[in-house]
Amino acid sequence: MIYADNAATTRMSRTAVDTMISAAQENWGNPSSLYAHGQRAKEALEEARKDVAAVIGATPREIYFTSGGSEADNQAILSAAALGRKTGKLHIISTAFEHHAVLHTLEKLKKEGFDVTLLDVHENGIVRPEELRAAIRDDTCLVTIMYANNEIGTIQPIREIGAICREKGVLFHTDAVQAIAHIPVNVADDNIDLLSSSAHKFHGPKGVGFLYAKKSVPLTSLISGGAQERGKRAGTENVPGIVAMAAALKETYAGMAENAPRVARLRDRLIEGITQIPHSALNGDAVHRLPGNANFCFEGIEGESLLLLLDDRGIQASSGSACTSGSLDPSHVLLAIGRVHDVAHGSLRLSIGEDITEEQVEELIQSVSEVVEYLRSFSPIWRDLLAGKKQFIL
Amino acid sequence: MIYADNAATTRMSRTAVDTMISAAQENWGNPSSLYAHGQRAKEALEEARKDVAAVIGATPREIYFTSGGSEADNQAILSAAALGRKTGKLHIISTAFEHHAVLHTLEKLKKEGFDVTLLDVHENGIVRPEELRAAIRDDTCLVTIMYANNEIGTIQPIREIGAICREKGVLFHTDAVQAIAHIPVNVADDNIDLLSSSAHKFHGPKGVGFLYAKKSVPLTSLISGGAQERGKRAGTENVPGIVAMAAALKETYAGMAENAPRVARLRDRLIEGITQIPHSALNGDAVHRLPGNANFCFEGIEGESLLLLLDDRGIQASSGSACTSGSLDPSHVLLAIGRVHDVAHGSLRLSIGEDITEEQVEELIQSVSEVVEYLRSFSPIWRDLLAGKKQFIL
Repeated sequence: MIYADNAATTRMSRTAVDTMISAAQENWGNPSSLYAHGQRAKEALEEARKDVAAVIGATPREIYFTSGGSEADNQAILSAAALGRKTGKLHIISTAFEHHAVLHTLEKLKKEGFDVTLLDVHENGIVRPEELRAAIRDDTCLVTIMYANNEIGTIQPIREIGAICREKGVLFHTDAVQAIAHIPVNVADDNIDLLSSSAHKFHGPKGVGFLYAKKSVPLTSLISGGAQERGKRAGTENVPGIVAMAAALKETYAGMAENAPRVARLRDRLIEGITQIPHSALNGDAVHRLPGNANFCFEGIEGESLLLLLDDRGIQASSGSACTSGSLDPSHVLLAIGRVHDVAHGSLRLSIGEDITEEQVEELIQSVSEVVEYLRSFSPIWRDLLAGKKQFIL
Repeated sequence: MIYADNAATTRMSRTAVDTMISAAQENWGNPSSLYAHGQRAKEALEEARKDVAAVIGATPREIYFTSGGSEADNQAILSAAALGRKTGKLHIISTAFEHHAVLHTLEKLKKEGFDVTLLDVHENGIVRPEELRAAIRDDTCLVTIMYANNEIGTIQPIREIGAICREKGVLFHTDAVQAIAHIPVNVADDNIDLLSSSAHKFHGPKGVGFLYAKKSVPLTSLISGGAQERGKRAGTENVPGIVAMAAALKETYAGMAENAPRVARLRDRLIEGITQIPHSALNGDAVHRLPGNANFCFEGIEGESLLLLLDDRGIQASSGSACTSGSLDPSHVLLAIGRVHDVAHGSLRLSIGEDITEEQVEELIQSVSEVVEYLRSFSPIWRDLLAGKKQFIL
């Protein structure tokens, strides 16, 4: 088995599993309880908060634990919108290729009277800071742009974006779900006010994430109730999940300096090998992309058949993101970078992890090449393309 | 150690821990992924949904997995409110002693123009159905009344309440966090439209819960994004947590018929023993209460000192609920049943679990008696009471 879908989810690390089990068995008290057993859970929670804060250059008070990246995205954007409402600023800037946790929240806000500008992400899948600068208005309350795209892996010029937002006095949120622990992220250096992250993307457990909110940014509760998370996120804290997330984050982050360049080198080999397939293309910028992400379009095939045949060969991959699979629409991300429907349908995302080997990369190249060739051999679209009845685009 | 705070949180069962570990290690694919590894996770998720539905008499399609009870409470109430807004019905009926996940959500709705009636829960901590009937208006969109109170353990006449709501055509939500797997709950028999539950109250993991919503009740998303949970709750599903919840639920529910009468008998012995302490009283109805819940007030002492001294003796208990501990205000639940401030401050909740022994119950009685006597020996309030400068209430 070659698991090449780390952008969808990662396998929990041994450390994270052990940390979770031991907390569930030994440190299971309610952190709000006064007795020592509860207070130990509270201490573990605060240790985790310190660890998470340290990795992204925040202070512990700026970290709020959530049930995952989607909740964090929702809360960040709705909090900024609530502030905007108070000051009569109802304009938000984002991009067309954000995660649906962002896009659907923006849709909700549009129904409530907000005006949303979606910046062009161009063919290379990267926002241009000067276009952001031009889009900011006096009534802009929030800029929300993802750190790295979940499908095509392109890394945005977050530092420049953050600097522009700071200069203009506009709040800046980034969905950093794909970035944290895979590339360096520092909220202070990057001028980030709000940041979302999810544990299961860096070998932590599912159902846990965190929201960073700069001290000066008051959050609105998405979940009201008890006074947990300083009154900003009610519900008994998932201590085993949270400490496991912190352990996974520390571990993955600690290995990043060594792993990232090696993974990026193997990703480049993957791109080199797979783009040898005729009428194929890499999606997104070749340089400014996540170390583990390679995303392709192939003419004349259906992404879904490709995935199923790869699965038969023990290769797990995806077309589009896991969150939108099952949908018949082509990826909104690929459409945003200008891929036409037909081509966007034949896409493949390979997201490799830290444990990938050179042999596996060669096997991925060979399998993808063979399966694409096989699928084309009985594809009516491919026949039409070869016969000149349809134009090749790639 | 005698853990007598099961209402705050329970220890995960061996079955639940094993189920969670094995899913985290073997079945960690993203359930939205097309390949077999992802589809196995999806199947496990749907198995869990069936198991949960079966326990409460629902159909699998009516179960939505959440991050816990608070999220489920928020989503249930906000969904009903959204329906009310559409039909111009802005009146909600609840009680003053609901969990804060309910009360704070109602506060939020009041700011948005909703009118909220809080029914009296009387001295015994039980709502009177005829008072509910009288309170329902033409513009009532929701009745939200907890199944069993989290502090004093009183069980509400849910079937009668449900029948009245059904008759009047009003949606009925119940926060059943303390009830599920401890007493029989059946959404069909009880005429429940919306029900909230949390795994860590029945030996499942923290950070997982579920919302039951009757087929005919359209939910509003609290967390927007991916199409998980039929579009009603975005975010990669926490499969290990969810399958562990289902395993814990099945197991605790299966043991209920045998455990509940035994635990209730021990609870009655606890009540008998502790109410021997002079100037003490049981809070809430003696009969209609959760098998494991005993809650007392003692004159002349502070609940917090009582908890800390019991902790020194290896006994974990609480005053009020864990969610509000740390607050200096007396419990809103005890105030709702008419306890005055002074008395409400000296409260103790003992919530015993299925593994409690007769010896432990005797030890609880003896320890509480000794600690109360010790604390009174240097309490200025107690001195005033004895000297007749203050009146005894209990």
